[in-house]
Amino acid sequence: MTLYTFLDYFGTMFFAISGVLSASDKKLDVFGASIIGLVTAVGGGTTRDLLIGDRPVGWLKEPNYLYAVLLGISIAFVFKRYLAGLRRTFFIFDTLGIGIFTIIGLEKALSFGIAPPLAILMGVSTAVVGGVLRDTLINEVPLIFRQELYATACIIGAAIYLLLHYFTSLPHNMVMFATMGTIIIIRTLAIRLNIQLPRFQMGGE
Amino acid sequence: MTLYTFLDYFGTMFFAISGVLSASDKKLDVFGASIIGLVTAVGGGTTRDLLIGDRPVGWLKEPNYLYAVLLGISIAFVFKRYLAGLRRTFFIFDTLGIGIFTIIGLEKALSFGIAPPLAILMGVSTAVVGGVLRDTLINEVPLIFRQELYATACIIGAAIYLLLHYFTSLPHNMVMFATMGTIIIIRTLAIRLNIQLPRFQMGGE
Amino acid sequence: MTLYTFLDYFGTMFFAISGVLSASDKKLDVFGASIIGLVTAVGGGTTRDLLIGDRPVGWLKEPNYLYAVLLGISIAFVFKRYLAGLRRTFFIFDTLGIGIFTIIGLEKALSFGIAPPLAILMGVSTAVVGGVLRDTLINEVPLIFRQELYATACIIGAAIYLLLHYFTSLPHNMVMFATMGTIIIIRTLAIRLNIQLPRFQMGGE
Repeated sequence: MTLYTFLDYFGTMFFAISGVLSASDKKLDVFGASIIGLVTAVGGGTTRDLLIGDRPVGWLKEPNYLYAVLLGISIAFVFKRYLAGLRRTFFIFDTLGIGIFTIIGLEKALSFGIAPPLAILMGVSTAVVGGVLRDTLINEVPLIFRQELYATACIIGAAIYLLLHYFTSLPHNMVMFATMGTIIIIRTLAIRLNIQLPRFQMGGE
Repeated sequence: MTLYTFLDYFGTMFFAISGVLSASDKKLDVFGASIIGLVTAVGGGTTRDLLIGDRPVGWLKEPNYLYAVLLGISIAFVFKRYLAGLRRTFFIFDTLGIGIFTIIGLEKALSFGIAPPLAILMGVSTAVVGGVLRDTLINEVPLIFRQELYATACIIGAAIYLLLHYFTSLPHNMVMFATMGTIIIIRTLAIRLNIQLPRFQMGGE
Repeated sequence: MTLYTFLDYFGTMFFAISGVLSASDKKLDVFGASIIGLVTAVGGGTTRDLLIGDRPVGWLKEPNYLYAVLLGISIAFVFKRYLAGLRRTFFIFDTLGIGIFTIIGLEKALSFGIAPPLAILMGVSTAVVGGVLRDTLINEVPLIFRQELYATACIIGAAIYLLLHYFTSLPHNMVMFATMGTIIIIRTLAIRLNIQLPRFQMGGE
C-alpha cells in the first residue's frame, strides 16, 4: 500500500466518522446514522466518478473502501462521547481530508482527459460533495453554502496544484505538499481572522 | 416473459402506486405526484445501475418499465380512496417488493463483477433508495433512517442469499424463496414485537 | 459555432443567472449562490447524460459550458437589482430555455438509441431537473411539483416534435419551431388563463 492509497483510505474513514457524528442530534437509528457516514465518506468520489465516467465508481472496485467506512462508523459509535470533545483535532483531520480528496479528484479527472478548469471543479467536488449530500439528507441547507472558506480553500489549492504542475518542474511530492499547505493555511486564517465570503442578497446592504 | 421479469415489472408498478399515495398530503399537482411515483419506482435500480456502470440505466433499455410506472400511477389516481384503507395489503406487497428488488439488485451487481459485500449494498440500494429519494423530494428526513427494520431486513436477506449461493448447492429458486422468507419474517416480527434499531444519540440515555 | 450550439450555451448561461437570483433570499454566500447557479444550469443535462450513459457528461467534454455558467453567475451578481425587476423578460427567456433544452435532450436521447416515449422523458428532464435540484438544495419542495403547466408544456412539446419528426417530412428547423411554439403557447395560455393541473389529494374535494 502506497502512502497515497493509505491517505485515501484514511480520509474515507475519517469522513465516515465525521458524517456519523454530525447525524447525532437528528433522531436517526444506528442504520440511518451509518448511511449518513457512508454517504459523507464516498459521496464526493462517487459524484466525480459518475460525472467523468469511471465505472463502476471507485469505491465499488474493491471492498477496502467499504471496510474503511465500516471502521469509521464503528469508531464513531464506540467513542462518540470522547470524540465530540475533540473539536480542534477534528478541524485538523477535516482540513487534511479535504486537501487529500481535492488532489486525488483533480488528478483522476486529468487522467480521464478532463480540461484543467473542469478538473479543478472535480477535485473540489471530491472534497465537498459528501458533506453537501449529508446535509441534504438530514434536511438542512448545505453548510458549505453558508460557511467559512471551505470549498474556496479547495479551489485555490487546486489552482496552485495546476500552476505548479504545468509551469514548474517541481517533483510531485512537493506539488502535493504545496497544495495541502495552501488549503490548510487558507482555512486556518479564515477561521482565525473570521474571514467569510460576502453574503449574496438582493436587498440593499 | 419469465416469472422474474414479471416480478420486476410488478414491483415497479407497486412502488409507483405507493409513491403516488405517499405524496397525497403534500399539496402536489398530478404531475408532481406522478414524478414522485416514477422516482419511487425506478430510483433504486437507477442508483444501482449508475454506480455499477450499466448504461443506459435498466429502465431506459426498453419502455416496459415506463408503462408499468404509468399503470401504477393511473391505479393510484383512480383508486386512491379505496387503496388508502388497505394498510395490511400494502405492507405485504411492500415487503414482497423490497425482497424482489434486493435479489434482482444483488444478482445484477454480482454479474457486473462487484465483490459480494458491496453487492449486498447494491441489492439493498435497489430496494430502498427509491423511498429515500421520495422522502428527500417531498422534503422529509428519509423514513428508513428512522423506521423499523426495513433496510436491515434487506441486508440480512441479501447475506442469507450469498451464504446459500456460495456455500450450498441449493437450486436458485430455493435460494430466492429463502431470501424472500427471511426478509418477510424479519419485517413482520419487527413490527409485531415492535423491535427497532437503537437510536443514535450523543447525549446520555 | 452553429445556431444550435449558440442556443445551448445561451440557455446554460440564462439558467445560471436564474439559479443565482432564486438563491438570493436564502442567506447563502457568493460561493453557495454560484453553486446553485451551476446546478440549475447543468443539472438537467447531467441527469440525462448519466441516465442515457454519455460519459463524461456533456458539460465536462469542453470548458465552454463552464464559461457560460461563470458568465451567467457574474451577470447575476453585478446586475442583480436591475434583473430582479425584469419578471416578464425572465418569463420569456425561461420559456425559450426550457424549449431549447427539451429539444436538445430529446434528440440526444434518440441518438443514443433510447425509445421515443422514454426520449420524451429525457427531453423534459433536461429542461426541468436543474430547477428541481435547485429547489431541493435550498430545501424547498420543488416548484414544478406545485406550479403551473411547466413540465407539462415540455411533455406536449416533445410529443409534437416526435409526431412531426416521424409522421411528416417537415424539415428539421420547422419541427423545432413548431415544438418551441407549442411550449411557448401552452405556458403563456396557462398563465394568462390561470390553468393549473388539478391538485392530487386523498381527502374529499
